[in-house]
Amino acid sequence: MQLYTFFPSGSAYRVRIALALKGIDYEPVYVVGGRGGAGGASDLKKPEYLALNPSAVVPTLVDNGHVLTQTIPIMEYLEETHPEPALLPKDPPGRARVRAMAHVMVSDTHSLGTARVMNYLDEKLGLQKKTGHEWLQYWNQRGFGALEKMLAGNPATGAFCHGDTPGMADICLVAHGFVAEKFAVGLKPFPAVKGIYDNCMALAAFADTHPDKQPDNPANQ
Amino acid sequence: MQLYTFFPSGSAYRVRIALALKGIDYEPVYVVGGRGGAGGASDLKKPEYLALNPSAVVPTLVDNGHVLTQTIPIMEYLEETHPEPALLPKDPPGRARVRAMAHVMVSDTHSLGTARVMNYLDEKLGLQKKTGHEWLQYWNQRGFGALEKMLAGNPATGAFCHGDTPGMADICLVAHGFVAEKFAVGLKPFPAVKGIYDNCMALAAFADTHPDKQPDNPANQ
Repeated sequence: MQLYTFFPSGSAYRVRIALALKGIDYEPVYVVGGRGGAGGASDLKKPEYLALNPSAVVPTLVDNGHVLTQTIPIMEYLEETHPEPALLPKDPPGRARVRAMAHVMVSDTHSLGTARVMNYLDEKLGLQKKTGHEWLQYWNQRGFGALEKMLAGNPATGAFCHGDTPGMADICLVAHGFVAEKFAVGLKPFPAVKGIYDNCMALAAFADTHPDKQPDNPANQ
Repeated sequence: MQLYTFFPSGSAYRVRIALALKGIDYEPVYVVGGRGGAGGASDLKKPEYLALNPSAVVPTLVDNGHVLTQTIPIMEYLEETHPEPALLPKDPPGRARVRAMAHVMVSDTHSLGTARVMNYLDEKLGLQKKTGHEWLQYWNQRGFGALEKMLAGNPATGAFCHGDTPGMADICLVAHGFVAEKFAVGLKPFPAVKGIYDNCMALAAFADTHPDKQPDNPANQ
């Protein structure tokens, strides 16, 4: 299994965590994406990468010739092919709750702060850095605010988003929490989210796969 | 089963199609969302709706007291609780392909053109209508361009996104195709996408659930 990964990407971080939680060995393929290279051109628009991933985004996972894109579908695939430890509960309402929390992070929140969106605000709309920062803050506050309400006071919430084992929602919470803490709003206004974030970061699967620990991060070179 | 729906929402349209394809009866609850009412205030920020859906978005599905949000998780729930007719193939790589196409539409594309995002561009950034239109065109071209490459020439593509029966990817293609044709780019530059869109719209499950046919659409009142 090969994972095309780029250290600062919250999306690539999600899949690294999922592979680590499931104990799946893989070969990392380091590519340079938008806004993260030291002035270098993005690898994601090269024909050989576009042939794998026409959306020109990281990550891409290749398993026995199957080319897999989009992080939640990749996690669903890993869940189906490597069921244990599970990233989803067994009951349909519980699975729906976990997936909904994952989507609040990925579809509703992370999608509005990707490198390609920030590039558009910057280069095409010519917005000031401050305006871009307010944009990130607004969507992060809205996304984490919704997640906080889904977690706080719900009896299904435990040490993690759903019970006492980490799963798909925790992965998405942490990977976007990293982005939010780095670029915009911190997690302090969202105590249930922050408590789960801290519980996750105490685990090697979340800590060792963090962007700060990646070999392609210039800080480690 | 109750579906909180609002006629112009591409997201609510997705779930209406899924319920129709599976032949599931439900009670529609008509709510007014952002930008679509005839000058009326949104129902989505009222406390009783926020208690169901803290993200303040449509749709919400309630099944036997289980409150379900986010369209792809709702479709996964329906697939698990009402397996036939299936919205996903049986093999994990096929399921991953269908889910990835669904996510290209929902997470990468639709998320950038929702009422709340257009409101932000308009009200907080003060952008001209033309600039908002270019924004929609850009993301739609990018999203449908990626989907076109995932479909065209892939032997798994049939009359629909994956084989010859409609599923989760087709639902997301059509629901966003409706938005794209109405507000921004048409589908003509994307022949594989357009062919599948037309095949879907020939089916009652897609045509009868269309925003133009909804009882809460003022055109029908």
